[in-house]
Parts: sequence; C-alpha cells; structure tokens
Amino acid sequence: MSTRPIVTLTTDFGGRDHYVAAMKAAILRVCPEAAVVDVTHHVAPQDVAAGSVAMEGAIANFDPGSVHLAVVDPGVGMHRRLLAGRIDGRLFVCPDNGLITWAWKRRGPGTAGEITWRPAEMSETFHGRDVMAPVAARLAAGEPLKSIIRPIGSPVLLSMAPAKRLQDAVIIYVDHYGNAVTNVGKELLTDGLKVMRAGRVRRTYGEVAHGEPLALVNSSGLLEIAVREGSAASTLGLTVGEAVRFQ
Amino acid sequence: MSTRPIVTLTTDFGGRDHYVAAMKAAILRVCPEAAVVDVTHHVAPQDVAAGSVAMEGAIANFDPGSVHLAVVDPGVGMHRRLLAGRIDGRLFVCPDNGLITWAWKRRGPGTAGEITWRPAEMSETFHGRDVMAPVAARLAAGEPLKSIIRPIGSPVLLSMAPAKRLQDAVIIYVDHYGNAVTNVGKELLTDGLKVMRAGRVRRTYGEVAHGEPLALVNSSGLLEIAVREGSAASTLGLTVGEAVRFQ
Amino acid sequence: MSTRPIVTLTTDFGGRDHYVAAMKAAILRVCPEAAVVDVTHHVAPQDVAAGSVAMEGAIANFDPGSVHLAVVDPGVGMHRRLLAGRIDGRLFVCPDNGLITWAWKRRGPGTAGEITWRPAEMSETFHGRDVMAPVAARLAAGEPLKSIIRPIGSPVLLSMAPAKRLQDAVIIYVDHYGNAVTNVGKELLTDGLKVMRAGRVRRTYGEVAHGEPLALVNSSGLLEIAVREGSAASTLGLTVGEAVRFQ
Repeated sequence: MSTRPIVTLTTDFGGRDHYVAAMKAAILRVCPEAAVVDVTHHVAPQDVAAGSVAMEGAIANFDPGSVHLAVVDPGVGMHRRLLAGRIDGRLFVCPDNGLITWAWKRRGPGTAGEITWRPAEMSETFHGRDVMAPVAARLAAGEPLKSIIRPIGSPVLLSMAPAKRLQDAVIIYVDHYGNAVTNVGKELLTDGLKVMRAGRVRRTYGEVAHGEPLALVNSSGLLEIAVREGSAASTLGLTVGEAVRFQ
Repeated sequence: MSTRPIVTLTTDFGGRDHYVAAMKAAILRVCPEAAVVDVTHHVAPQDVAAGSVAMEGAIANFDPGSVHLAVVDPGVGMHRRLLAGRIDGRLFVCPDNGLITWAWKRRGPGTAGEITWRPAEMSETFHGRDVMAPVAARLAAGEPLKSIIRPIGSPVLLSMAPAKRLQDAVIIYVDHYGNAVTNVGKELLTDGLKVMRAGRVRRTYGEVAHGEPLALVNSSGLLEIAVREGSAASTLGLTVGEAVRFQ
Repeated sequence: MSTRPIVTLTTDFGGRDHYVAAMKAAILRVCPEAAVVDVTHHVAPQDVAAGSVAMEGAIANFDPGSVHLAVVDPGVGMHRRLLAGRIDGRLFVCPDNGLITWAWKRRGPGTAGEITWRPAEMSETFHGRDVMAPVAARLAAGEPLKSIIRPIGSPVLLSMAPAKRLQDAVIIYVDHYGNAVTNVGKELLTDGLKVMRAGRVRRTYGEVAHGEPLALVNSSGLLEIAVREGSAASTLGLTVGEAVRFQ
C-alpha cells in the first residue's frame, strides 16, 4: 500500500475551464499531502458509461487505500444521491447515476452508501467541488467510510456488464488509438477462437502485418479489437454498443 | 490555510509541447514541495480576456497564501512589465497586459508591483519559464512580495468589468459545456427577473426540460445562460462580448 | 539538484483513457514522494521523432538527477529493447526505437543499457506501465542505473540530427503556436544571416509587425521560424522535414 494518499479524478469537465482546479483546491485543502492524479477530464459530456469504464481503469491500477473520484453528473442539482463506497479495498466517490457500474460489476460488488454530509455553504451546480471532493479528501486522509455515509442497498447500475458467455459480447469503449474494448474477460477465451473480421486471438500486435486487424487481450484483461499501427474503430467502423461475433 | 505551498498555472501553451513542463521544472527547482496545479493550458492563443477569467477562477477557489501564475503573453520580449501582487490574500504573477483584470475588478483591487528580479541568463521568448515561474515559486516558498517587486500604481486592465447594473450585462466567457457566463453577480438579481431567451433565473438545471434553455447562478456566483444537457452557446448562438438583455 | 524525486512523462496516449494514470500508479507505488510531471501525452500516435523532440525538451529543462520516461511504442510486444540510461546527468527510460535520438545527439552521447528486469506478471501490450514506469520510479528513488541495465553499444537512433552546417538545416518540429523549430543551434548563426522567407534573425517577436514572419532563437537555443501573433506553419506552409534555406 502506498505511503502517500492518492485521489484520482475522472470527469467530463474538459481542459479549458477552472473546474478541475477547483476540485483540486477542495482536495488539497483537506489533504495537502495527497497525490492528485488525473485519469481523464475528456469523457464526452455526460457520457456516464464511458466515465464508468475510465473510472474502473483507475480502480484497477491503483493499490488498496487509493480514492477514486468521478464526476460525470448530468443530474447535478436534481434528485440523485451522492455515493461513497469501497470495492476490492479501493474507495470511490461519485454521483449515484451509474458511474460506478463497470467497477462494481467487474471487481465488486462492493459496499456503497449515500453521502449525508453537506458543507455549510454549497452551490446548486457544482457538487463535485462542494461535496464530493472534500469527501474524497477526507477518505484519503484516513477518515472511516462509515462516518461519512448512510448505507444503501445497491447503487444505480447501468445495463452494461461483463459478458458471462461469448453471446453477450459487446464493444464497451473505444480508446484514443481506435482500439475497440469489449466486455469479454480473458477467462472466456478458448484456444482457436476467432473474432469475426479480426481473426484468432493473438498475443500481441506484431503477429499481424501493418494495417491489419487483430484481436488480443488488452492490458485490462479484456478482449480488444485493434489494427496494428492503425485505428480499428475507423478501419472496421466499430462503435460502442455494437455486438461482437465469433466464428 | 493549506500547509503545502500551491502554485496554479493558467496558460495558452496547449498540450503538445514541453513548455508547461519547463515552467514546472523552474517551480520545483525553487520550491520542491509545491503542489503545482494546472488550471488550464488551453486558453485560445493570446486571448488575454479568456485567460483572465480562468485565472480568477483559480484565485477564487484556492485559499489565501496560494500563488497563481498566468502566462498568456503576446508581448513577450517587448516592453510590457511583469507583475507580482496580492488580491484578497492570494498571490499572483503574470505579464502586465490585462491578465489580472477579472480577478482585480471582481475580488480586488489588490496590490501589484513590477518584478525587478532577473536571472543571470534568460531567453528573449520565454519569460514564463525564466522569470515568472521562479518568482511564483519563491512566493510559494514564503519569500515576501516586497522583496521581489517595485510598487506601481495600477496594473494594465482590460475594459471587461463586473456589471454594476443589469444594463451593463455581457457574456464574458463560454465554457466547455457551452454555458455562457455573464459579468452579472448574483447580488444584482431580483425576484421575477427574466433573462431574454432563457426565462426566469432558476436554481438548477432540473427545473427545465431536457434541451431547454435556462438562466441560473453558476458556481462562481455569476449569472449563466445554459441549456439543460446541451450547449447554450451553440443552441442559442451566444458568443463572448454579446450583450445580455432582460425582461 | 532538486530535493524531491522527479519523473517526467512523454507519451502518445492522448487525454481520454486511463493509461497515463496507470503509469502514474506504477510510479507512485515505488516512489510515493515523486513529483510526476506530464510533458505531453499528445504526441501524434506512434510519431517517434516528435516524441524525441518533446522528451529532449524535458531533459533540457530539469536538473541532473531527474528521470525522463517516454513511451511512444509502435513496437510494443515485438522485439525491441527497453532502454534506461543517462545523458548529461539526467536519467531516461524509453523503448529502443529512436525516441532518445534528439537528446542523445544534442546533449549526449550518454550511456544506455537494456532493461533486463521484468515483473513477475506483465501484459503483452503495456510495457510502459509494467516495466518502464517501475524502472523510472526506482531510478527516481535512487537505485543505481547499473543494477537495472545490461550495457549496450549505441541505442537505435533516427536520422534526425543537429545541423553541423547551415546546408543541413531542416524543420524538426512545429509547436502549438505554429512556430517551426529547426535543427540549427544558435552557435551556427552569424551576423547578417537571412532566413529565406523570414528575413534576418531577430532577438524577439516585437521587432516585426503583427502578422509578419521572423526568424529568432527560441527558448531551447534553436533557430525558429515564427509569425508574430500568428502561425508560421499555416501562414508559410511549413512542415516537419522541410529544408530551411538561407540568403
């Protein structure tokens, strides 16, 4: 476990405004020694599913005790709860709108509760700064989760889920390179399996020629469709939500 | 007040080059324990007014003692002064070209002086790295402002200003979501006031239907024109500098 | 020398995915007190030459003892070596595909070796996270280079090189502002020299009118073709690889 508190940030705030810095101000005020790590601020505006995948990427890579704050929040100021919880030893804070889905279903279930704490003054439109960031920092500083939340049953979850069988395979995310990430964990793959339009599952890009498509297990342990030194999404026309077929 | 020195950065350097890292090198050399926080590096090239709004966003959100460095500097190498000063307990460093305007007029006036210190060697084209970053770091490390500057009267200020009356209302900034921020502080708003094309001032997005325009007080305490889960700038065709009308 | 370990990151990972954060997780696990500084993650996908210039910018600006990790790695999972080494007191870690070229030729030669260490478990597609980031962190934490590498002769180097004579002058990089950076160090410049289409070498932008082209020595000590408050690349149609002519 790291000896320095870590808070990661996943948002749809973009890179032009002061909103990310405002969140960091709120975090550093409470936990000045924290390493605050940006996961991404370029989730498409209000795309909760994409934010869910990015947030799980952070949860998967950092050690137990790290805190993962995500704010993709189309419902800010409306009646959606704010969550804090724990999955596999990692702590998370986010609105209860499905953002936790991919981590919860892939690495959980965990425990989650509603954040009942509110600051003396808060805005109607920026609960990320006013509530979630201070709570994430308090968790990073070692405050116990149970002092901050009121237990709930299950958080709101999107329908996306890890495939239980190959028939459920679907593209859940397209990354910067145009690699199409599926919901198929490597444990479902069998020898000789062929992915439609991408052939058999390879170990690495070098097994096909430049510009050729391939399937492989990515660094998150998921089946991915790629094009060597190219973009599978544009070459093959792949999009999120599309079913993946096998031969 | 935070127990760790904080330096924020607001620039038009973009995200592709090593220039931001060069500034951070200069800061960490002088004040290794600083938390260096990016506000944005995506101010439109040489758009001093937009930089001024972003910088004020940082000043407003961090605590007294924090240092705010902004570099949008079309006049680098020409005869413009370099400033350091204090507004409402926060310290700032920037070229004297109007960048401090929005913070100075909204949260000041403060005190400002010309930076007289120069390093033994410096480039002609990157005073952000060679002068302003080391000065910001020295302030963050606790060196008194008066040892670094020569007092001046007023810094250069742009004509943009907080509205004193509703007749002065104008759009000063369009954010990543397409929200149009005005120069109207919430203290000017009265019950029943209606913003042309956006209706009466709401508390939050949820009070209108998806895709509908609304007016509300944003997280900086300014009147903002938004579209629920959409872009007011593109839906309503709003741009910076445009007057805002009321009914 | 800084009293805090520094690791810089130069990649083509972009800003949307969790990959940069995964590298930072691996660094902070080994060296929690490190300042991890982003140089850029917006190198064009698999553009090793551009990555090489950005990485050299980091090496040039940070002090001896700093560690510079670059991952632009079209050959991941294929037979390319992973390097660690030292140039002018700075440490570097990158794939052996030419990424170190510009630093090696401009500030070296240095010493380089192949990283022989491998973790117990590693992915086939993300050696940046699984091998290079932990190695960079160990170097930042003070582990001697020789305990991590097996010496090699020369790293793989691209053909790009600092100009030895003006006849070799070529554009090596176009920055965010559209400034065209050449491979001509200031030591090659003589009084009265004129750059074709940009005139004599100026000290600073202010010496020409708005929108006019000029040549000057940039903050890296290289000849640069610029347009005052404009883009030389688009105004003059300059691209990387183009020869630069003098009068």
